[in-house]
Amino acid sequence: MTDRYASFVQSGAGRALVKRLGLPDPPRLRRHTPGDPLLPGPVLLGAATGGRLTEPVTAILTAAGVDVRTGTGTTPPTAGHDDAAADGPAGRNERAGNGGAPAGRFGALVYDATGITDSTGLRQLYDFFHPQARSVLPSGRVIVLGTPPAGCGSPREATAQRALEGLTRSIGKEFGRGVTAQLVYVTPEGDAGTPTSLEATLRFLLSGRSAYVSGQVVRVGTGPAAVPADWDRPLAGQVVLVTGAARGIGAAVARVLARDGAQVVALDVPAAGDALAAVANEIGGTAVQLDLTGADAPTRLADHLADRHGRVDVVVHNAGITRDRTLGRMDADRWDAVLDVNLSSQERINDVLLERGLIPGGGRLVAVSSIAGIAGNRGQTNYATSKAGVIGLVDALAPALAGRGISVNAVAPGFIETRLTARIPLVIREAGRRMNSLAQGGLPVDVAETIGWLAWPASAAVSGNVVRVCGQSLLGA
Amino acid sequence: MTDRYASFVQSGAGRALVKRLGLPDPPRLRRHTPGDPLLPGPVLLGAATGGRLTEPVTAILTAAGVDVRTGTGTTPPTAGHDDAAADGPAGRNERAGNGGAPAGRFGALVYDATGITDSTGLRQLYDFFHPQARSVLPSGRVIVLGTPPAGCGSPREATAQRALEGLTRSIGKEFGRGVTAQLVYVTPEGDAGTPTSLEATLRFLLSGRSAYVSGQVVRVGTGPAAVPADWDRPLAGQVVLVTGAARGIGAAVARVLARDGAQVVALDVPAAGDALAAVANEIGGTAVQLDLTGADAPTRLADHLADRHGRVDVVVHNAGITRDRTLGRMDADRWDAVLDVNLSSQERINDVLLERGLIPGGGRLVAVSSIAGIAGNRGQTNYATSKAGVIGLVDALAPALAGRGISVNAVAPGFIETRLTARIPLVIREAGRRMNSLAQGGLPVDVAETIGWLAWPASAAVSGNVVRVCGQSLLGA
Repeated sequence: MTDRYASFVQSGAGRALVKRLGLPDPPRLRRHTPGDPLLPGPVLLGAATGGRLTEPVTAILTAAGVDVRTGTGTTPPTAGHDDAAADGPAGRNERAGNGGAPAGRFGALVYDATGITDSTGLRQLYDFFHPQARSVLPSGRVIVLGTPPAGCGSPREATAQRALEGLTRSIGKEFGRGVTAQLVYVTPEGDAGTPTSLEATLRFLLSGRSAYVSGQVVRVGTGPAAVPADWDRPLAGQVVLVTGAARGIGAAVARVLARDGAQVVALDVPAAGDALAAVANEIGGTAVQLDLTGADAPTRLADHLADRHGRVDVVVHNAGITRDRTLGRMDADRWDAVLDVNLSSQERINDVLLERGLIPGGGRLVAVSSIAGIAGNRGQTNYATSKAGVIGLVDALAPALAGRGISVNAVAPGFIETRLTARIPLVIREAGRRMNSLAQGGLPVDVAETIGWLAWPASAAVSGNVVRVCGQSLLGA
Repeated sequence: MTDRYASFVQSGAGRALVKRLGLPDPPRLRRHTPGDPLLPGPVLLGAATGGRLTEPVTAILTAAGVDVRTGTGTTPPTAGHDDAAADGPAGRNERAGNGGAPAGRFGALVYDATGITDSTGLRQLYDFFHPQARSVLPSGRVIVLGTPPAGCGSPREATAQRALEGLTRSIGKEFGRGVTAQLVYVTPEGDAGTPTSLEATLRFLLSGRSAYVSGQVVRVGTGPAAVPADWDRPLAGQVVLVTGAARGIGAAVARVLARDGAQVVALDVPAAGDALAAVANEIGGTAVQLDLTGADAPTRLADHLADRHGRVDVVVHNAGITRDRTLGRMDADRWDAVLDVNLSSQERINDVLLERGLIPGGGRLVAVSSIAGIAGNRGQTNYATSKAGVIGLVDALAPALAGRGISVNAVAPGFIETRLTARIPLVIREAGRRMNSLAQGGLPVDVAETIGWLAWPASAAVSGNVVRVCGQSLLGA
């Protein structure tokens, strides 16, 4: 669970050596603490001609206490970070000759690309990002806002909007120093204004909560969303079930959701009872010992939730197991156990909770998929099949439950530092850690923060997404 | 353009050394020569209960001269390949204890999974593939047939069908020895029978034409498709335009399409005139020297096609350039040139050819995207943006042109051995070559064969696909 290489690199002596030898240089990532400002510096906000989001985004950012500069401003913001001059000559050279570009360093570059209706208009992206390529502070953010291609008015517009993905993912791979890059497709709301869910999504992506999320395409739909009284307690009053909560990612989810104000029901198998009780006590939640694969488990769980809380606002399907073998050497029990825990039991529980009306309107289902469910993996036919199924579940249930105001999303973790990954042989573990844009493994809290965002009442119109928490891993499909 | 490591490994002495040291072991891939049988051995065909494709697939395979065994057969096929006994004890052990499983070695495993309507039914995949995991001949094939999740009758069915992707991609990573694995989603045709395009797709995927295609999800729609008089000349009588045809992938496309019977119009810039003329002469085609970025290029091209041929059945948008720099160091000319050649000029040409009715019903647009358009790439913001745009173009134009019987697809090459990749520094080149399930770079002919399949009249109902030709590269989004 300790990345000794990253600790070494982040020390003074290690830093010098790594730079000299050209070794991977995992930056120290900015992570969230309640009360933190959203960003370590101002936002530079730009827009293509005809964009529809500049005004609402300015309002959202200003309300969040962010200093917003626009693409044509010339006031140099104060260099608010001790790493501000670390770029050396390259950084200075690259800004030479861009007379009108805003100078200084930014916590984030946000670009409204919704006005681009033809591939020739993509040049505006270059005009905005080229002079600013070195101006983003460490652990800063790049966010490109677009229109979902399927909702565009012409093939030319759809083509240009889809092209944004290539730019964003390339920036995620180029900028380094813990800077992440995301593309957010925002469904046009017509006369009804901006989807309020954009506020939750922007706050998550700009903040340290999204430290290990990069190179992602997030889709924000239409419709109203609740705005929390306190953005540091966005889950206040929510009853949340977290399965597999005794340790690892599940325990981190329970802690983060409780920190964000939720009343947490922490569930795990009886064999993990002590660890589970410790987590539940720590966060002021309750513990449920239950084997989810039991035939009566869905009913027992539903009874428990009905009796104690009368409802469950958020269900986090985190419980999962691995039983790795190549297919030729895998016995049937390994296949069955993984499919049942990771996928089938989840379906049975959803069905019972929904049938009994225990998930109210505004409810949230958040499932844990995996990079293996996207890319497949040697030795994990069972696990990859189950986790690809979870993606199918999101794709199928999200539209089916939209009418009831229930959102359905998944996270797909990449290499996360846990008890399990600590057992991976050193060379493979090192490859997994470094083969991503952030050159390090993520932490359980990174997955937990992402699940938290998807669980917020304020994220109502974020549904049907599978968001990777993988540091923009090179691995994919 | 030479993979000396692969040549060494495939030699006797190299083979022994590589096995002893555990080095990457790139197999010699089976590639297509006209007149070849479809497969080096029989097909083992299995099906989940209630599957709808066993009968039509049996008919297709039998018509193609393939020896079809069913999942419950017991007759051992003749070991028809000199590598048949090379597996050693592991291969034998893994089949022990599966009394009813068909013995012997197979050219392909084909499984009809359309009958799986719930995640608990996925166990049938294990029952079929587990005992056969070592029975596939080198360069053999695994093909799983499913129903597109979006067209499924219930969330449970959609979930199970989506889960197939995890299995298939994992098998692609596990089986080795040049074996490829694909998932083909076949839209149900109702009472009208099986889409005839399934025949073209199965023939392509089983044959050596698809040598470097693995881990892909192909979608086959409904509707009739022309069956060629001779499957060795599936493009007989077709007028095909290939841009960027003077060298590399474009020249390979021109050669393969001519071999398959097409009348090829080979286009490239005037500066490449000599190389272009040589290609055109070699294949009995015609050469057009034209800079596609010129304002009058679309009109001049349309005039030429109208005058000489009266139409163009297939347009292969292969012309593309790279002008790599990180975004901060990229001058505007590099951005503009790449976007214009790789994307905007393609749109202008499509529009003019379509407006003038030069692409008849049954026409084909095939564009060349890139793995960089899917995953992004450091130093290629311009290229990745343009190639992501090509994917958008396919997504947008395919439904828009479906009513005219015109299909729109793209290929996305991974690491292909060309003049350009030969210039990549050795270490990066080696990483690119080995980081895929086949442990080697592809050849231009592999991209060309894939484009050929998408161009066939018999592929009418294959539209809106982006098919990677990347040996199941680890790189993705």
